[in-house]
Amino acid sequence: MPDFPFQRVTIVGLGLMGGSIAKALRAANFGGKVCGVVADKEEAGRIRKASGKWQVKLSHALASALKDADLIILATPPQVLMVQLPEVARLVSPTAVVSDVASIKAPIAQLGAQLLGDRFVAAHPLVGSEKTGFGAARKRLYQGARVVLTPSPGQTGASLEAMRTFWQMLGATIVQMTPEAHDHALAATSHVPHLLAFAYMAGLEGQADALQQLAGGGLRDFSRIAASDSRLWADILWENRAAVCQHLSMVQGTLGAAERMLAGNDAQALNDLLGRGQICRQQFQFPPVHS
Amino acid sequence: MPDFPFQRVTIVGLGLMGGSIAKALRAANFGGKVCGVVADKEEAGRIRKASGKWQVKLSHALASALKDADLIILATPPQVLMVQLPEVARLVSPTAVVSDVASIKAPIAQLGAQLLGDRFVAAHPLVGSEKTGFGAARKRLYQGARVVLTPSPGQTGASLEAMRTFWQMLGATIVQMTPEAHDHALAATSHVPHLLAFAYMAGLEGQADALQQLAGGGLRDFSRIAASDSRLWADILWENRAAVCQHLSMVQGTLGAAERMLAGNDAQALNDLLGRGQICRQQFQFPPVHS
Repeated sequence: MPDFPFQRVTIVGLGLMGGSIAKALRAANFGGKVCGVVADKEEAGRIRKASGKWQVKLSHALASALKDADLIILATPPQVLMVQLPEVARLVSPTAVVSDVASIKAPIAQLGAQLLGDRFVAAHPLVGSEKTGFGAARKRLYQGARVVLTPSPGQTGASLEAMRTFWQMLGATIVQMTPEAHDHALAATSHVPHLLAFAYMAGLEGQADALQQLAGGGLRDFSRIAASDSRLWADILWENRAAVCQHLSMVQGTLGAAERMLAGNDAQALNDLLGRGQICRQQFQFPPVHS
Repeated sequence: MPDFPFQRVTIVGLGLMGGSIAKALRAANFGGKVCGVVADKEEAGRIRKASGKWQVKLSHALASALKDADLIILATPPQVLMVQLPEVARLVSPTAVVSDVASIKAPIAQLGAQLLGDRFVAAHPLVGSEKTGFGAARKRLYQGARVVLTPSPGQTGASLEAMRTFWQMLGATIVQMTPEAHDHALAATSHVPHLLAFAYMAGLEGQADALQQLAGGGLRDFSRIAASDSRLWADILWENRAAVCQHLSMVQGTLGAAERMLAGNDAQALNDLLGRGQICRQQFQFPPVHS
């Protein structure tokens, strides 16, 4: 197995994603230094008790947390990250690599390239969950996961290669594509499903008590992602709003067609539509439940 | 524990729901006779090998399968059931109770009441799964499940009481409401989510290969119900199309509002909408995964 390409890793944000990187590094016998940065003092205290050897610092000590690091991973929500990135770029050592884990890539990759050139490597591990916070973080979250790296056009070199090795050493498989291709595809595979689930449950507002006893596994799984952090997801949808709107319009077109089939007594067309949906669903190979 | 209120149970249709009743009866040490009716000769042969003591007959022998039965459960898709019900009513003994397991109730309860009076007890066990067929049937499917009984207005008496006892002896909890209230609520908790999932996946037709590597647990769970039997679900949606269209229109209104928020730069409204969805989702208590 190759050595870890970094020796001093600072993770800004110790939620599900960032916390799991810290735990995964410890589980992988990473011999270097790990430093986590969180905004909340009480949260920092709780994490320190669980963190063992690694450091936990508060956001106002960002400069000291970044000073020595040779890898900085920003694991904060996209809009927070976009505000932090200029400050991080100013504070890091001139050889440090900076990366992220956000579910949108184009605006982040563009800003990162402007500020840090090839030393910013935009990344998105496909390991979402409705669970949030350090308590939900798991050392095996990235085992067998796919991590999308979205280098900017022409970006090559040591930083990109080091991030590939880093994620592989945490058990992940690397997928590489442009930031724009990522955002366009993720609108379809993740962002719009989240919007539909949130919007669907918003439409049931005030009816949980009445509907509770008639809700089973179907609604449970369909709406699971609506239990996710709504601020984070409003943020993601917002940053990817062009692709989200485009895909959402397509979905609305299909739903309008379904409504016309039902209202217009076209049972055959409805049957065909559902059949196409079933076939497409069966063509996807999904990760197992509880992966 | 009370005795089973029936001694000779005939189940028409041995898929997930009907097959699970047969297996659950055996597991509950039901001492009476169980007879299953299936349409397909090869399927009948396969089930006979697995069925142990109970009989498996083909649809053309329906008369002999119904003759002695004191309980007949129709576990065929709604439109098949509506065609079978008049024939069943003609063939059964004058004291037999007839029931069903379909996900829509008003048209079935109405037809059953016309044909059989109080001896038809409309029922819907909330145990759906995307899996189908006798192979997916499980003896514990109804343990801890809710079974909705939807008697017609004024319906009381021994048949309703016997069906309550029957399902309780298979481990289920009884919920009782009118057929119309059931269908209206189920549009929101099950039928429209199925339509959205099928329509969503139909919109990804031909893109499974391209999107595969960017699809994770979110899309997997959101779309699980689109792997269900599309003919069965077209049938259910069709039979409940008034309530489905009404709820679908509401959902489309919410999605249109979300699109206007994204296109009109109203991030705060988007955040509020998602927040309402998250809160509502968290107010539901769902059955555990793998229940």
